[in-house]
Amino acid sequence: MKFSVKKDIINNALSVVTKAAAIRGIQPVLSNVLLDTVDNNEIKLSATDLDIYIEMKIKAHISEPGSITLPARKLNEIISKLPDENIDFNLEKESNTVQIRCNSSKFDVKGIVSTEFPPVEYPESEDFIEIEIEPFLKAVKQTIFATATYDINNVLSGVFCKISGNNLEMVALDGNRLATVRENIENKDNKSFSAIIPSRTLKEFSNILTGSEDKTVLITVKNSQILFKLTDRYITSRLIEGQYPNYEQLVPKNYVKKAVINREKFMVALDRVSTMVNERTNIVKFFFSKNNLKITADAPDLGDSCDETEIAYTFDDLTIAFNYRYIQDFIKVIESEGVQVEFDTALAGTLYKTDDDSDVTCLIMPVQVD
Amino acid sequence: MKFSVKKDIINNALSVVTKAAAIRGIQPVLSNVLLDTVDNNEIKLSATDLDIYIEMKIKAHISEPGSITLPARKLNEIISKLPDENIDFNLEKESNTVQIRCNSSKFDVKGIVSTEFPPVEYPESEDFIEIEIEPFLKAVKQTIFATATYDINNVLSGVFCKISGNNLEMVALDGNRLATVRENIENKDNKSFSAIIPSRTLKEFSNILTGSEDKTVLITVKNSQILFKLTDRYITSRLIEGQYPNYEQLVPKNYVKKAVINREKFMVALDRVSTMVNERTNIVKFFFSKNNLKITADAPDLGDSCDETEIAYTFDDLTIAFNYRYIQDFIKVIESEGVQVEFDTALAGTLYKTDDDSDVTCLIMPVQVD
Repeated sequence: MKFSVKKDIINNALSVVTKAAAIRGIQPVLSNVLLDTVDNNEIKLSATDLDIYIEMKIKAHISEPGSITLPARKLNEIISKLPDENIDFNLEKESNTVQIRCNSSKFDVKGIVSTEFPPVEYPESEDFIEIEIEPFLKAVKQTIFATATYDINNVLSGVFCKISGNNLEMVALDGNRLATVRENIENKDNKSFSAIIPSRTLKEFSNILTGSEDKTVLITVKNSQILFKLTDRYITSRLIEGQYPNYEQLVPKNYVKKAVINREKFMVALDRVSTMVNERTNIVKFFFSKNNLKITADAPDLGDSCDETEIAYTFDDLTIAFNYRYIQDFIKVIESEGVQVEFDTALAGTLYKTDDDSDVTCLIMPVQVD
Repeated sequence: MKFSVKKDIINNALSVVTKAAAIRGIQPVLSNVLLDTVDNNEIKLSATDLDIYIEMKIKAHISEPGSITLPARKLNEIISKLPDENIDFNLEKESNTVQIRCNSSKFDVKGIVSTEFPPVEYPESEDFIEIEIEPFLKAVKQTIFATATYDINNVLSGVFCKISGNNLEMVALDGNRLATVRENIENKDNKSFSAIIPSRTLKEFSNILTGSEDKTVLITVKNSQILFKLTDRYITSRLIEGQYPNYEQLVPKNYVKKAVINREKFMVALDRVSTMVNERTNIVKFFFSKNNLKITADAPDLGDSCDETEIAYTFDDLTIAFNYRYIQDFIKVIESEGVQVEFDTALAGTLYKTDDDSDVTCLIMPVQVD
């Protein structure tokens, strides 16, 4: 194998693909990136830790076809330090060593033969849904914070994603909160799917967009696998199997008491009050009274804190306590000017919503305090 | 105690003084900052972990004199989150609790009575040397990297600092390298001192300059203590006692072979080559030949690296190996365009110098390789 490639092109591709390489493991080849000549002017870079697989194709000048795997992070580090010029790769087959040359710099990097690289599990299907990336990523951001800690066997560690007609719905819940987003999307072919996507897969999907100019992504779901396909790269991973909870029935429908709070002021007040929170419990108390919200916290040995904000609220006085981080997680990812809070009693789940026409909500369980 | 102070003023003072407060310890009061009204319009903030003491005075409107200590980092966090307005402090004596009010925010912070705060050990002397801050700090930066790990009983963990006439000399050495700086300074009163200053004291001295407009600092050394005094703040600490090694005799004087390397190119080449260094030893090899420097490294299981740079060198070929971090540490902190390297054999200490008229050097011991 012998090829020449521009530094910035392979540098970007390595940054993308390396995200799928294992940090360390029993199989050294899983920490490597597979370099493969595809035709006269393209090489394919791929990496997998067996959970996620990322592949990217880039333009290169190939003078001798072939393939090899090289340590992904080390190669990425070497390339990133080279000047913005053409870089020559030359595989010496006997030793599985690649000579990398660029100007006055020369590296001999030991690789592992490409036949040891695990075969790609690829959901073979031409049945793609094409959707816009931007609203998809926004919905991910507005739900992913509520997933449980990653565990391939726990449905709550994934984001439930459903596309049907022009509706995109994403849901995440972890026992203390339930985040849901509904958005209108374009869906020309009117295809549909639903799946529980591991939160890591969604994070890596947004990471592999670096340097891509694509506005839409092709998604296919088959045999418990998902594939996100862009023009020059794709990512595939296993889905989480199992039955997602019937979350719809968890959402209270008939709350009468409503308050609207300016989001910016809410964030600042929470941030200030939380300096005096009990770090074991993270509890802050909300005192709703006519057009006023008082937020307090106290940390046993340190003291206490209090902040008041003018709000739109005309119902009975109510005191209700929360883990303030759950509130922060939600109000950080929404974009509306106001936050609408809907509740009934101090012990019932409270609905936090955007106050504009977006359908973004988070049901948060309050904490019982004396 | 009751006073009112502008947010940005107390915020800056707390950031400065908190650096002397203990992170945690047996005596909780050492994590606290002492607030003390000085006269009608000034309060004094001070903190100490018994190694270092920092004090700062700021303008405030005082309506009731008094003093109290409050948790330094927590207070700093609270104040930093408040809006840029006046902040009111009000001590409730019975409970040692300070009420802090600013707009809609209110905090009650529990303190410790000020009599528990350790008395200041202050080198009582009016015998100050006044020197410019800028050349002093530069000399610190160009030597401090070569100090040994901090230990109050090890003279090598401090920077040896000597002022006599118009000469400032700083020295640090750790067994593998010896950094020296000589600078001309103004010294109107022609006073002199020499001392081994703990590296931490020098770091904190440069940290407390935040927000100060002073161009000169007053230094006094007495009873194994040093004091750096600025207009509105000062820092004092113990000095390291003991005999500093006779470093002058370590510096080779009669080296004939010299090379001059462009500093920027030297940095880049070292950085590239070091990607393939054996991380246990950090060894890179330098091959000096006529007007050429080749730098190589090899990491047993990964491969090897090589870079070549044009240099000014006309002597015999020489191969010499170093821990590349020692070279980096030095060439990062100098400002000259070129680095002058002076050597004799592959086993003798090598002198790295600036190639301009500044007197900044680092003697680095090579590593023996086969």
